[in-house]
Order: sequence, then structure tokens, then C-alpha cells
Amino acid sequence: MSRISYVNGRYLPHRDALVHVEDRGFQFADAVYEVFAIRRGGLVDEALHLARLARSLVELRIAPPMGEAALKLVLREVVRRNRVANGTLYLQVSRGAAPRDFVFPKAARPTLVVTVRPQRRQDPRLLEEGVGVITIPDIRWGRPDIKTVGLLPNALGKQQARDTGAFEAWQVDRDGRVTEGTSTNAWIVTADGEVVTRQADHSILNGVTRYGLLQLLGGEGLRLAERPFSVAEAKAAREAFLTSTTNFVLPVVSIDGAPVANGHPGTLTLRLRALYDAYVAAQVAAP
Amino acid sequence: MSRISYVNGRYLPHRDALVHVEDRGFQFADAVYEVFAIRRGGLVDEALHLARLARSLVELRIAPPMGEAALKLVLREVVRRNRVANGTLYLQVSRGAAPRDFVFPKAARPTLVVTVRPQRRQDPRLLEEGVGVITIPDIRWGRPDIKTVGLLPNALGKQQARDTGAFEAWQVDRDGRVTEGTSTNAWIVTADGEVVTRQADHSILNGVTRYGLLQLLGGEGLRLAERPFSVAEAKAAREAFLTSTTNFVLPVVSIDGAPVANGHPGTLTLRLRALYDAYVAAQVAAP
Repeated sequence: MSRISYVNGRYLPHRDALVHVEDRGFQFADAVYEVFAIRRGGLVDEALHLARLARSLVELRIAPPMGEAALKLVLREVVRRNRVANGTLYLQVSRGAAPRDFVFPKAARPTLVVTVRPQRRQDPRLLEEGVGVITIPDIRWGRPDIKTVGLLPNALGKQQARDTGAFEAWQVDRDGRVTEGTSTNAWIVTADGEVVTRQADHSILNGVTRYGLLQLLGGEGLRLAERPFSVAEAKAAREAFLTSTTNFVLPVVSIDGAPVANGHPGTLTLRLRALYDAYVAAQVAAP
Repeated sequence: MSRISYVNGRYLPHRDALVHVEDRGFQFADAVYEVFAIRRGGLVDEALHLARLARSLVELRIAPPMGEAALKLVLREVVRRNRVANGTLYLQVSRGAAPRDFVFPKAARPTLVVTVRPQRRQDPRLLEEGVGVITIPDIRWGRPDIKTVGLLPNALGKQQARDTGAFEAWQVDRDGRVTEGTSTNAWIVTADGEVVTRQADHSILNGVTRYGLLQLLGGEGLRLAERPFSVAEAKAAREAFLTSTTNFVLPVVSIDGAPVANGHPGTLTLRLRALYDAYVAAQVAAP
């Protein structure tokens, strides 16, 4: 069965999923996106992703390509046509194609692209052994809270991590405090058991998995602080972990090559992962 | 005659100039570009643009899509097929199309797109009356010296300028000093006749017109300083102007709504514009 992708009203063989060279997503990074996890053929946290998409569009004054009900139908149809039970759905909206000009075009219609792909089961070693991160300066623009495709600094950071054998790079602001990973949110558990992640202001993307986990933490009676933490604090933490739509919760066991605590996944981290897995399973099992 | 654009080895009707939705230029702003002025069918400062392109590619570890000699032939062929005497040539190189992943793809081949369009003659009022600029915070990423398509902050800034009736927005760093316009370099002439523009470090794009004008200034015996200048200094300047590939030299006569000096184009600015026009004319008249 061939892979089918959606572009501006048409369901196409993936290789024929094309956009114009003057699409502003290609020439100006003038576009936003969302990545949804698919489990049992359902979209995990669909409402949260769509709400964030709507916010991104408003921030950039891009008109929604269609109403939310219609969009949901498109998402379902792309999943259905690809017969993907477990995987990811990628959605991108750009301001549209128009003769190249920095000024917003008056007439362009937004471009909507939706692709789906199956996801290999996460390598169990990532969870069993944990992953390493490096720290790098956060050189992104001033609005990483908007989920734009201006991801070159993120890609460069991720590549730098992989070049050194690490899984992810944690970006660090001018004050020496971690903002977030290049495609994941960053968390620590302090020596006295407080769970810490940076507050969702303009300096980070408000991750959907981050948000979901925060809700679960409240229910577990865990002590939580949404505040910046320094690299030094992270290196001295009892546990560290990262969250994202495709990774859920993963233990971080080294930072810049130095082990976090004993260098093994933290017990609270693994408990949170189990909680989150159950949260996702319950969601897609619902009638 | 239909417009012809080049995409990865093919000369296509412009409406058929397409790239894949998984091109990294569309999904990650993982691409660089150049805009060349075309005069009398020739490319102005071609060597300088190609040198800057080569630098951008090296900085991002993107392989050149072809050798420079072959690339020059493609550029000439696109100009020829479009029969454009005066206009602009747009060239974009992305890291290529690959299944979406922040990490650099191992197998992708760079995407090369070249488009050309005729340019209306510059509205003479822009030169006769000058233009207004507003000042906005520079919220771009840390490497605007690399000419990437991560231009969303620039587009937002330009739109903000136009929303307020201004021609351009000058971006201002945390120390209150002008970096550059959203698609132009910023210059002032101080009360004692010194011509000032910011030094080309990591904080600005090293404009080709900026560079060409600097060479001309030296020949004219004018006093020159490559250094940052504050918004206050700009507002108190004797003259102000901007430079770019498509605008050449344009007088700036107001900043944030307040007139620069008497609110008319500066005499030195107009002299520099004439010098630059002559420099371009001499270049394309050469055998």
C-alpha cells in the first residue's frame, strides 16, 4: 500500500505531495506545524494540539485553512488511508504561495499539508538505559513559544548532540538556565524530590506532553515547580528526564558526559513514564 | 511568454516549479538563498553573491548542489529563458528532501531552485522623497550573518513597518543599537560627516550592496566607521539611508515618525546613490 499525503484538498501519493517553490513556508519559514502521536489509529491529545495550532496561527495572523471540524475530518482521513495504527501525524500550515515579498501577501490562501507515518516501537534501551544530553547556547529567535517551522537552530543543535553521541541538546539561555531541548522539554527532580520544569512563557514551546504530565503530577500529589533551572542544578539533580510527543517520557542519565546521580534512569522518572503511558492508553481506548 | 523556473535540473513553467513537502527548506528552514539584481541581462556582483552563498553552505554543512561553473550556467540560462533585462534572480539551496527528522539526513541531495522576475523601475518618489523607518526589537536567532530562509521575524517586522505606513523596520539589539533592517542594511551620516554602518559580525548579514558601497566610499575619501550606532544617534543624525540588492541606496527621512534632520533626502546620500548606480552601470556595460 502506498503512502498517501494531503496537500491543499488533495490526497496524493506521498512522492507527489508537493508545494510551490514560492510557498512562504519554503522561502520565509512563514508556517506553523503540529506533530500528533497516533495510537490504535487515534490521535493522542488532539484537542490540545489543535488549540495550540490555533494559537500559533493567531500569533502570526495566518488565517485557518479550514474550520476545525473539517480539519479533524482531514486528519482522520489521512490516518485511515495510510492504515497507520501507531505512528505520527505531521500537519503544517503556511501563509500560502505568493510572489516573493517580505510583506504578507494580500491574496494568498494558506497551504495545508498533512502526512502520516508508522512509528517503529521505541527502542526499549532508551527507556531502560536512559539517554545523554549536551548543553548548548539557546540561539533561537525571541518567540520559540510559537510552533513555527523556523527550526534550523534546533536541527543544528540536534545534529551537534548526535555528533557527540548524545540523544538531545538542552538549550541554555544567557543566564545559564536551561530553556528546553531542541525538540523536547527538559525536567529535573531535585535532591529534595521537587519536580522542576521551566514555566511556559515566551522562552519555550508549551509541549503537549509537558502539559499532560503536569496534570498527572498534580493528581499524584508530587511537588512541582515551574521555574527555570541552571545547568549546574541539573547536573546536581537526583533525576532528569525529557518529554515530547514522539518520546513520551525518557530518562536523562548524563549531561555533558557527566552522569546524573548514579547514571541510571531515576525511579520517579520511570513511574512518570508508566503514568503517562497509561494516560495515553486510556485515551485511545475510550469509546 | 511564460515564466520559467529551475528546480533540480529541470526548467519548468513557473506554476509547475514545485518541491516536496518533506523538503527541509519547507519543514525546517534548513536552506539558504541569494537575491541578485539583473541589469541589462547581467547579474550584478555575481561573484560576491556566489562567495556568500558558498560561505552560507559551509556554515550549515550543506553540500553545494553543483560546481560554481555549472551553477553560473544555470543562472544565465534562467535569465535567458525569461528574457529579463532588468529584474531579480532568486536562488535557494536547501539540504534536500528526506523523511522528517531534526538530524541531518545521510542520503538527501541538496535542492536547488532558481527563479527570475522582471522588476518594475523603482518608484522615483522613493529616491526623491526618501522613506520612513520604524525601530523594533531584533528578535532573530543568533546567526543572522548566515543567509538562511528563516525569515519569519524579518517578515513580521516588515509587515509591522507597512502597517504603520513605514517602508522598513530597523532592528535594535538589547543595548539599544541598530543591527540592520529586515531586508536592508542601515546607515547614518553623523553631524560631523562620518558615514557609519554596523560592522559585519554575527549580528548582521553582510550585504553585497553594503560591501560595494564601502569600497566606493574609500575611493571618495569619505570618513567611514564600521561600528554600532544607537537609535538616539540615528535620530540625531545629519542623514540616514539604507542599502540592499533591490533598493540600491535609498534615503531614510524619518525614524519612528520623527524627521531625520530637515526630513528631506541627504545630499551625501544622493551622491552615494549616484555613485552606486554608476558602479552597477559600469559593471553590466563591461564586455
